[in-house]
Amino acid sequence: MIKVEEALDIVLESVKSMDAEKAGIIDSFGRVLAEDIKSDYNIPAFDYSAMDGYAVRVADTKGASAGKGAKLKVAGELRAGGDTSARVEKGQAVKIMTGAPIPQGANAVVMVEDTKMEDGNVAVLEEAEKGENIRLAGEDIKKGDLVISKGTLLREGHIGILAALGIPEVNVTRRPKVAILATGDEVISIDEDIKPGKVRNSNAYSLHAQVLACGGIPINKGVARDDIEGLKAKLRSCLDCDIIITSGGVSMGEYDYVKDVMIDMGMKLKFWKVAMRPGKPNLFGIINSKPFFGLPGNPVSTMVGFEVFVKPAILKMLGRINDDRREVEAVLEEDIRKKKGLKFFIRAQTRWEDGCYITRTTGPQGSGILSSMVKADSFIILPEDEELVKQGEKVLVRLL
Amino acid sequence: MIKVEEALDIVLESVKSMDAEKAGIIDSFGRVLAEDIKSDYNIPAFDYSAMDGYAVRVADTKGASAGKGAKLKVAGELRAGGDTSARVEKGQAVKIMTGAPIPQGANAVVMVEDTKMEDGNVAVLEEAEKGENIRLAGEDIKKGDLVISKGTLLREGHIGILAALGIPEVNVTRRPKVAILATGDEVISIDEDIKPGKVRNSNAYSLHAQVLACGGIPINKGVARDDIEGLKAKLRSCLDCDIIITSGGVSMGEYDYVKDVMIDMGMKLKFWKVAMRPGKPNLFGIINSKPFFGLPGNPVSTMVGFEVFVKPAILKMLGRINDDRREVEAVLEEDIRKKKGLKFFIRAQTRWEDGCYITRTTGPQGSGILSSMVKADSFIILPEDEELVKQGEKVLVRLL
Repeated sequence: MIKVEEALDIVLESVKSMDAEKAGIIDSFGRVLAEDIKSDYNIPAFDYSAMDGYAVRVADTKGASAGKGAKLKVAGELRAGGDTSARVEKGQAVKIMTGAPIPQGANAVVMVEDTKMEDGNVAVLEEAEKGENIRLAGEDIKKGDLVISKGTLLREGHIGILAALGIPEVNVTRRPKVAILATGDEVISIDEDIKPGKVRNSNAYSLHAQVLACGGIPINKGVARDDIEGLKAKLRSCLDCDIIITSGGVSMGEYDYVKDVMIDMGMKLKFWKVAMRPGKPNLFGIINSKPFFGLPGNPVSTMVGFEVFVKPAILKMLGRINDDRREVEAVLEEDIRKKKGLKFFIRAQTRWEDGCYITRTTGPQGSGILSSMVKADSFIILPEDEELVKQGEKVLVRLL
Repeated sequence: MIKVEEALDIVLESVKSMDAEKAGIIDSFGRVLAEDIKSDYNIPAFDYSAMDGYAVRVADTKGASAGKGAKLKVAGELRAGGDTSARVEKGQAVKIMTGAPIPQGANAVVMVEDTKMEDGNVAVLEEAEKGENIRLAGEDIKKGDLVISKGTLLREGHIGILAALGIPEVNVTRRPKVAILATGDEVISIDEDIKPGKVRNSNAYSLHAQVLACGGIPINKGVARDDIEGLKAKLRSCLDCDIIITSGGVSMGEYDYVKDVMIDMGMKLKFWKVAMRPGKPNLFGIINSKPFFGLPGNPVSTMVGFEVFVKPAILKMLGRINDDRREVEAVLEEDIRKKKGLKFFIRAQTRWEDGCYITRTTGPQGSGILSSMVKADSFIILPEDEELVKQGEKVLVRLL
C-alpha cells in the first residue's frame, strides 16, 4: 500500500497548469492570476499633502516660532482633485487640502494647527522641516515594480490595487471542469423516499461544494449503476472535463467495477489503496492525459479523499503558488488509539485558548458519520507509525 | 474619541437580522441558514454491512475456529442497493456486500477473510460477535436530531448532509445589498489616465470584493463630487440598499461634506472618529433604519474600516452565529512604536514555526500604502495604552 505523501507526489507530478483566460478585475476576485503584474505608474502618481494646511518653502519659515510667526502671502488654494497650476514663490504659501498635489516651489506642508491668520496673510508658527507632511510619488508602488506575482490567488486588496494601477482586466487561470459521477445500485436521488438498502446521493452535493470552494467548476454527471456497460457509458461522458471524480465502486467487492472499467478504457493506473483512514481504497490514474480520481463511496471517505488528493491537484492546475491551509500543533484533549501503518485524518474541533491550540475529536469517526464531518473545523493528522496518542500530547492539526 | 470596542458595540446594537429566502441546497453553499434543520430520518436508514462477507446468526458460529469451521448453507446474496428480501434461518448464512442491508435473522457479519468455501457451503473460521461489522440505523443521525443550527454558514459537509436528509431547498438569510459610493473631486475612473492630483477609484473595487467575501451583494453607486447638491443626490440613490458605505469625505477638511449632508438628510449620527489607526475618521449613523458607514478615503483606511466595522455588521445581519476569524497570539519579530491612545491595526505576515506563531509587519504602514495590505495575511492588533512593543514580545494577531 502506498503512503499518503508518495501518493500525493504522484498526483502532483501528473497534473499540469491550465491555460489562461481574460477576466475583468471584479470577476477575477478569488481567481488565480496567470501573469505577473508590473506597475506602469508611480503610486501615488504625484507628491501630495498628507494634511490640511499650507504648502511653503522651508527657507521662508527659518526662525519662526509661536511668538514670532513667519508671515507669508497666501497665493492660492489647492483642493484634492482641483486645479494644479498653483506655484509657491518666495514669501508665499498656498492653502492645501489633504490629497492635493504639492505645488511647484513648495517643499513642506505646515499643518493648519501650526499657523494663524493675520491681516489676510498666514503666520507659520514653527520652522518647517523639508518634506514635512508630504507623501512622495511612488512611496506605495514604483513604476516597474512587480506588484502581484503570477499564481497569486486574488483577494480583496489585490482587486483594489489592480484598480489603482488602471488595469481593467487580467489573465487568470482557466478553472478546470470537474466531472462528478456517483456510482452504485444503492444510490438514489435526493428527492426519492428512503427505502431499505438505498442511500441518497449526498456525495455529488458535498463534492460539488468542495470543487467550487477550491476554484473548479463542478459538472454533475449523475449516477452510474453497478453494471459494466452502463458504467462505461457514464465514464465516457465524463471525458470532456478536465478532471474526473467518481465516488464508490473502488473497494474489494465483487461489484466494484470502476478500476477495471477505467483500465479497460485506457486509464493508466497510478495507485490504488493508500495507507490512510478514512479512505483507503482511493484510486488515481490518468486517462486521455486527464487525472482520474476514484474516491471511496462512504460520505466521509469521499470528502477526505477530495481534501487530501483532489484539492491539491486542482490548486496545482490553477497554478496557485500559495496554499492557504494552515497546519499547526495543538494539545490533544483525549486519548486516540489508531491502527499502525495508516495515516489518520481525524475530524476535530480546534480552538485557541491561553496561548495555544487545543483540539478534540468531533465524536465517532466511522467513515459513514457525516455529522462528525460537519462539526469539524480541522483535521488531526496522525502519522503512520503511531498507535496511541495520549491526552496532553501535541499533534499536527490542519485548520480548515 | 470613541474606542473601537465601544464603537463596534454601537454598530452591532444598531443592525438587525435580514429576512429569509428559499435556496436550492447547491445555491445555499456559502450562505447562512435561516432555520434549524432537524432530521426526518435515521441516517443510515437501516442496519447495513460494513464489510464484504457473510451475514450469520452468532449462535451458529459458537465454537468455530480455523481448525474446525462452522459450516453454514449459503441461502442467498445481498448487494448494496439490491433485493432486500433475504432471510437467514438457523444453520444458514447470506453472502453480503459492503453497504447491503442486514438480512432478517442475522446479527453479525463475518468478513470474507475469516471464511472459506467447502463443498458449496461456507465455513466460518471464527466465533462471531453480536453486532460485528454491522453499522446501525441512526448511528450518524437519529430521527428528530437537530442537525444544523439556524445561523450556520453552510460549508461543504452541510451541503452533503442536507442531500443525505433529502432536503432539496432551505431557508437562508437574504444577502444584504450594500451601496458603495466613492467621494471626492480627485477620484477618477480606473480606465482614465493618471493626471496630477487625481487618483483612481480603487476603493470601489476593494470594497466590492470585501462585500462579496463576507456575503453581501455589492452595488456600485459610482463617485460623488465634493459639492453638496451632487453628493446629496448620489447619497439619496443609495437609500434603496440595505447598507450604505461611502469612502472619503469624512475628515476635517473644508470640503468633507459627508457628515453634514447625511445629517441634513435625516441620519442619526452614532459616532464619528474612532481611537484607531489607520482609519480615525470612521463615521457611523442610521438613516431610514439603515446602517450608514462613512469610511475614510485612504485605500488602507477604507479596507480596515470595513474589516473592523462593516464586516461584523454584515455577519450580524446575515444572522451568523459563528465568526470564522481566528485571533491568536504571535511572537513579534521587530519593535513597533505606536501613538498612545489609539488602537493600531498593523498589516502583518504571520507564520507557524517551531510550535508557535511568529509575526512581522509588511513594511511601511501609511494609510495610502495599499501594497502593504496585499502582502498581509493578518493584522497585529495593538491596544490603546501601548507605546512600544518590543521584538520577542507576544502580540494579538487576527488571521485573515
